[in-house]
Amino acid sequence: MLYFDIMNRVYFDHAATTPVDKRVLEAMLPYFSDSFGNPSSVLIEEGGPPRQALDEARKKVANLIGARSEEVLFTSSATESNNLAIKGLALAHKSKGNKILFSEIEHYSIMLQADSLRGLGFEVDFVKVDTDGLIDMADLKKKVTKGTILASIMQANMEIGTVQPIKEIGRFLKEQGVLFHSDGAGTCGQIPVNVQELGVDAMTISGHQFYGPKGAAGLYLRSGVPMRPILHGGFQEMGYRAGTENVPAIVGFGEASRLAQVEMEEKVARVARLGQKLWAGIASITYLHFTGHPTQRLPGHVSFWIEFVEGESLLLWLNLNGIAASTGSACASNVLAADETGLKASHVLTAVGVPPEICHGSITFSLGRENTEEEVDYALSVMPTIVDRLREMSPLYEKAKGGK
Amino acid sequence: MLYFDIMNRVYFDHAATTPVDKRVLEAMLPYFSDSFGNPSSVLIEEGGPPRQALDEARKKVANLIGARSEEVLFTSSATESNNLAIKGLALAHKSKGNKILFSEIEHYSIMLQADSLRGLGFEVDFVKVDTDGLIDMADLKKKVTKGTILASIMQANMEIGTVQPIKEIGRFLKEQGVLFHSDGAGTCGQIPVNVQELGVDAMTISGHQFYGPKGAAGLYLRSGVPMRPILHGGFQEMGYRAGTENVPAIVGFGEASRLAQVEMEEKVARVARLGQKLWAGIASITYLHFTGHPTQRLPGHVSFWIEFVEGESLLLWLNLNGIAASTGSACASNVLAADETGLKASHVLTAVGVPPEICHGSITFSLGRENTEEEVDYALSVMPTIVDRLREMSPLYEKAKGGK
Repeated sequence: MLYFDIMNRVYFDHAATTPVDKRVLEAMLPYFSDSFGNPSSVLIEEGGPPRQALDEARKKVANLIGARSEEVLFTSSATESNNLAIKGLALAHKSKGNKILFSEIEHYSIMLQADSLRGLGFEVDFVKVDTDGLIDMADLKKKVTKGTILASIMQANMEIGTVQPIKEIGRFLKEQGVLFHSDGAGTCGQIPVNVQELGVDAMTISGHQFYGPKGAAGLYLRSGVPMRPILHGGFQEMGYRAGTENVPAIVGFGEASRLAQVEMEEKVARVARLGQKLWAGIASITYLHFTGHPTQRLPGHVSFWIEFVEGESLLLWLNLNGIAASTGSACASNVLAADETGLKASHVLTAVGVPPEICHGSITFSLGRENTEEEVDYALSVMPTIVDRLREMSPLYEKAKGGK
Repeated sequence: MLYFDIMNRVYFDHAATTPVDKRVLEAMLPYFSDSFGNPSSVLIEEGGPPRQALDEARKKVANLIGARSEEVLFTSSATESNNLAIKGLALAHKSKGNKILFSEIEHYSIMLQADSLRGLGFEVDFVKVDTDGLIDMADLKKKVTKGTILASIMQANMEIGTVQPIKEIGRFLKEQGVLFHSDGAGTCGQIPVNVQELGVDAMTISGHQFYGPKGAAGLYLRSGVPMRPILHGGFQEMGYRAGTENVPAIVGFGEASRLAQVEMEEKVARVARLGQKLWAGIASITYLHFTGHPTQRLPGHVSFWIEFVEGESLLLWLNLNGIAASTGSACASNVLAADETGLKASHVLTAVGVPPEICHGSITFSLGRENTEEEVDYALSVMPTIVDRLREMSPLYEKAKGGK
């Protein structure tokens, strides 16, 4: 009775990762076995085509975010970009101060740098968000003090979908002379992003969240902003990041960026429409609470928690019925991680004031361009039954019902 | 007259990188667009196949080097592995001492960590090599003192081909209680390597030097040896390395390891024979000096310099005649790099006592399994003419000849 007729898998977990676009893979293929040379081999013919391919990819990524080519660095993952930006900028500007600000809903790859930064002599403080997940500007203004050199505030949180007013934040930080890094892993390639307009000094870009391959990501670094490398060695990436370039993945990242730019408008409209339908449909489930901002949010992103229903159980039952979703971020769903960090109760949900005693995990549906109306209909048909059944197992629910 | 009839490109630069084996690419392909899930998505079906693929790949890499699966960590490049090993081990053992030793012929990705380590409060010293490029054991013994916590000595240098007696070095370091990291980027997958026999605590493995893809590399870390991560975030790679795993590249790295193990004996024999022929053939060129150890060296690796001939000019003319080789390491051939580090005169050649005033760069031919006897014959037919012509342009050569 909890098993429905499953057509195909319904993938509503695009925030965790996306399949590589076939056209992207096609663009990558020549660089594995044919144009396989090392781009650093500048004196032999074999180095030429891969080096040109890197240049092309850099242009495409730069175009996607309104940057100049030379302002885009390639790394192996958004996590590496976040580490490079924070540690690299902090170390390069240590003479000006030692205070760093994070929002309290950053990804693990920002949050968990705090200890390491403290070990390097920095102070780390956290800026509050309101119950919709928006940065508390008053708290930000209070916490920017003499000695604050860097703030990292993500553009969109993938667990609750809220998109920050980066432009406004950027303007304030610029006035204060504070460097501004924004993790754009949830936005670049997914909604229009222009680093000039946003006023960021550095921005993390993740390719595998918009149909590019895993293994290549980017860091936008505004021209003229000093930054130290964290991986030392060869002089790839203008000296900011050593290591033989992952040419095929970078080529794929570039092509995914180009496609994302060309197809952005259509995709956003389509995904937003499906997301709105899903949102409206599940709104009728009792005791369901949406998370994140109702309108300033990622298109096709629907996140919520349900009283008396464990997020993990719901996720498992959805999975058994063919629907892939997530609780929090993919990284957070690793049980080991949760145990080791004590972050089992999502730091993001806690930050937006979700009461841990009645919320046992939230669910995120993140839609992508290949999702269909039929899939949304299917999810809407399945959800109420699963929720009812899970709730019936909860003694607390029985009690709550009885009390009404 | 310096242009010969070129059949095809002759690729003698396998130390820089290798083409991806078609079988390796075949193994990778399902993980781009089909089994594309995030391995950290442990609660949904999509995470399963990629997670199993990572496990399989880890086994294959572990088998190649005689390690246990859980002793192999995946990174994005040998450079990252070298950075993780050195910084990660140094920071985790700082309470025991602050002295670190490198051989003076390490790759840039070891050498250029020195400043960063000093910034973290460590002292870095360098162990000498003899004129064959072998570690000076007396110097090593002298430099291991109270407070020495870590030594990094590469197994084989890709510029001069010398293979170190790692077992002997490992035994000594173990007696002294000094952690031993060895950069095996030039050896793992290319000659038989067994980490247990070698007695190393950590070893860097590079996949793209033995027909695996760029973007995946490994770090062997002996069970029970504490190490700090350098990229913070999610709990991938047992907490040692955050970031969404590059599943396709790791799968390829695993398959390349399996193939390298199966085909090792045949490949080594074949490549060694071709290398010996090449060595014998060019030995007749006057004023030619081989570099590295004559016998304790990588199979199929022939390196040398020629008086009165600039290495770069020779490389360019070889390239124009269809032969790809290198001067020093691929990373070192980047002119910007040379200028910025002042390492224009190779630190490796300087260390083995090559006089900079008469050696203007060395040449490395690194052969691979697809090379043929015909290609070696072709190179041997081309070399003397090119060398003669280049030498005739050198005023110093004229003078030297006149003086005889």
